Amino acid sequence: MCGKEPGLIDIALLGTGGTLPLPGRFLSSVLLRHGGNLILLDCGEGTQVSLRKLGWGLKDIGHILITHFHADHIAGLPGLLLTVGNSGRTAEEPLTIFGPRGLQRVVDCLRVIAPVLPFPIHCIEWDGCSTVDWQINGLRISTCKAEHDMFTMAYRFDLPRLPEFQPQRAKELGIPVTFWKTLQKGEAITFDGKTITPDAVLGPPRPGLSFGFVTDSRPRRTFHSFFQNVDLLITEATYGDNADQQKAIDNKHMTFAEAADMGIKASARRLWFTHFSPALPNPDYFRRNAESIFPEVVLGQEHMAITLNFRS
Amino acid sequence: MCGKEPGLIDIALLGTGGTLPLPGRFLSSVLLRHGGNLILLDCGEGTQVSLRKLGWGLKDIGHILITHFHADHIAGLPGLLLTVGNSGRTAEEPLTIFGPRGLQRVVDCLRVIAPVLPFPIHCIEWDGCSTVDWQINGLRISTCKAEHDMFTMAYRFDLPRLPEFQPQRAKELGIPVTFWKTLQKGEAITFDGKTITPDAVLGPPRPGLSFGFVTDSRPRRTFHSFFQNVDLLITEATYGDNADQQKAIDNKHMTFAEAADMGIKASARRLWFTHFSPALPNPDYFRRNAESIFPEVVLGQEHMAITLNFRS
Repeated sequence: MCGKEPGLIDIALLGTGGTLPLPGRFLSSVLLRHGGNLILLDCGEGTQVSLRKLGWGLKDIGHILITHFHADHIAGLPGLLLTVGNSGRTAEEPLTIFGPRGLQRVVDCLRVIAPVLPFPIHCIEWDGCSTVDWQINGLRISTCKAEHDMFTMAYRFDLPRLPEFQPQRAKELGIPVTFWKTLQKGEAITFDGKTITPDAVLGPPRPGLSFGFVTDSRPRRTFHSFFQNVDLLITEATYGDNADQQKAIDNKHMTFAEAADMGIKASARRLWFTHFSPALPNPDYFRRNAESIFPEVVLGQEHMAITLNFRS
Repeated sequence: MCGKEPGLIDIALLGTGGTLPLPGRFLSSVLLRHGGNLILLDCGEGTQVSLRKLGWGLKDIGHILITHFHADHIAGLPGLLLTVGNSGRTAEEPLTIFGPRGLQRVVDCLRVIAPVLPFPIHCIEWDGCSTVDWQINGLRISTCKAEHDMFTMAYRFDLPRLPEFQPQRAKELGIPVTFWKTLQKGEAITFDGKTITPDAVLGPPRPGLSFGFVTDSRPRRTFHSFFQNVDLLITEATYGDNADQQKAIDNKHMTFAEAADMGIKASARRLWFTHFSPALPNPDYFRRNAESIFPEVVLGQEHMAITLNFRS
C-alpha cells in the first residue's frame, strides 16, 4: 500500500460507485501518481472532494483520461478544472484531456460554467481505430475499445524498464565512465572511431510495470491480450450476484464472476473491482463469486492505494 | 426544526459552502418542501448526495431555481436530473427550471452528458426587468437582481393566507352552508338574486409566510424592501472577518457584518448564513461580527432544517 513517500507508480481509488454517487461512495475514478505528475482516470461528480480527502494534491493533475461520456464518469470535470485553477496551476502548465472521439465538443459544452481557466486545456481524441502513441513522462498509454452502450475506451499503461547496466563489461571493453550514462539509457556511443551499442553492456530484458483500467464494459476476448500480464487490473464489476448476469448483458456491464474470469484470462497479477451498482451496498457479500475464479480479488474502497515498484 | 411530518413549508440547507466543495461541506443549496412538491434552490456539484443524506426524496423535485451560472451553483444539474429520472419520475411529470436569461443554453450544454431523460424539462428565464408572475402550488415567487460578477437573481417566496372565515356572520346573513367554502376561498357568491362578496364574512387580513434567498451578491439597498419582513432570510455570508471587507467588495460577496446589517434593515424574523468561503473552516469563530448587529444569527450547517407554519 502507498505510504507518504511517492513510489514509482502510486495508484489510488477515488471512488467505487457506478451510475450515481451515494453517501460514502464516490463515483468510479482512479488517480495515478508518477514522476511528480498526477493522472486522473475519469471524473464523475464529486471527484474533487474525493481528491481532497485523499490528500495527494490537485494542482499537479496534468492529464485527465476519460473512458466515456456518461455523466457518472465526467460530470465532475468543470468543477475540478476550476478547483485546479484555484490551486495555482498557471498558463505555463497546460492540462491535457484524453478521451473518445467527440471529447472536444463535450469539454466545450461542460465549460459553459467554467469558461475562464488560468491554464490552457488540450483535448486529444481517439477515433477507436488508429494506433495510439501517447505517453506521459515515460508511461506509455495504449487504448482498446470497450463494449458499452456508447463508445468507451479501456486503457493500459506500461512503464518499460531498461536492462541492467553491467559496469564489469563496460570496463572490459575499455569504455570511459563518461559514456556509461548514455549506454545505460539505451543509446549507442562512439569513441576512438568505434560504435558501441547498448546491448554490449546491458543485461537481459527486465519486465517493466503495467496497469490496466476498464469501465464500463462487457467482458471482451480482446481484453485478454490487451491486459495480458498487467501488474494490476482495475475493472468494473457492477453486479455481485451471478443471478444478475442477464442484467449485466442488457446494461453492458460485468458481474463479479465475469470480471474475475477476465482477470484470470489476462493473467493479471492483481485484480481490483470498482464501479459497483448503487443496488449493491456491500460488495463483500458476493466476494465468493469472484474468488472462486480469481484468488484474492480486492473489492475496491474509497482511497485504497497501492505502490507499484520494479521487482528487484 | 423540521420533524418527519411535513409542515406548511419545510426548508433545509443542503450545503453551506461557496466556490468549491470540501469534505463535510457541500456547495450552497437549499431545499423547500411545500404541498407535496420539492423545490431546489441552486444545484452545485454533489447536491444529489446531500439530498440523499437529507432523506426527503428526489423524485418529487418538480422545480429547480438557479441563482446564476457559476459552477458552484449549477454543476450538479446533469447528475441530479439523471438521478431524478432513475428515481421514477415519468413523462407525465415535467420538471421546470427557473433562472437568469441564458438558462436554456446553459441547460442544453450541460445536458451533453444527460441527453436522455424520462421526463420533459421546461426552462423559464428571467430577463432582469419584467415582473415575474411565477407560482408553485400557491407559493408566489418574486425576483430581484443581485450584485455579483455575473447576472444573478435573488428570490422571495410568499405564501398568502386568507382572512379567517366567520361562520357567525354567514349565519346572520342567512347564507346557506353550501356557499361557505366558496366564500372561504375568497370568491363572491350569488343566491336569491343577491351577490355576497367575501369581505362580508371574512375577518381582518392575516400575515402569510415568506422566505428569501440571496447568493451570491454584495448587499444592496433594494434588498431591504425586497426581503421586508420575511419569516426567514437565507443569505450568503462568505467572509467572517470584518478585515475581509475589501475582499468582499472585490469578489462581490458579503461579510458576516454586511449580511447581518441587511437582515436588520429588511426586518427579517430569522437570519441564516450560508455560502461560507473555503478559507473559513469554522464560521462560529466570527459569530460576534454578525450578532453584534442581528441577534441570534444561525450559521448554516448541512441538513439544518426549519418548518414555517402560519401563526395561530
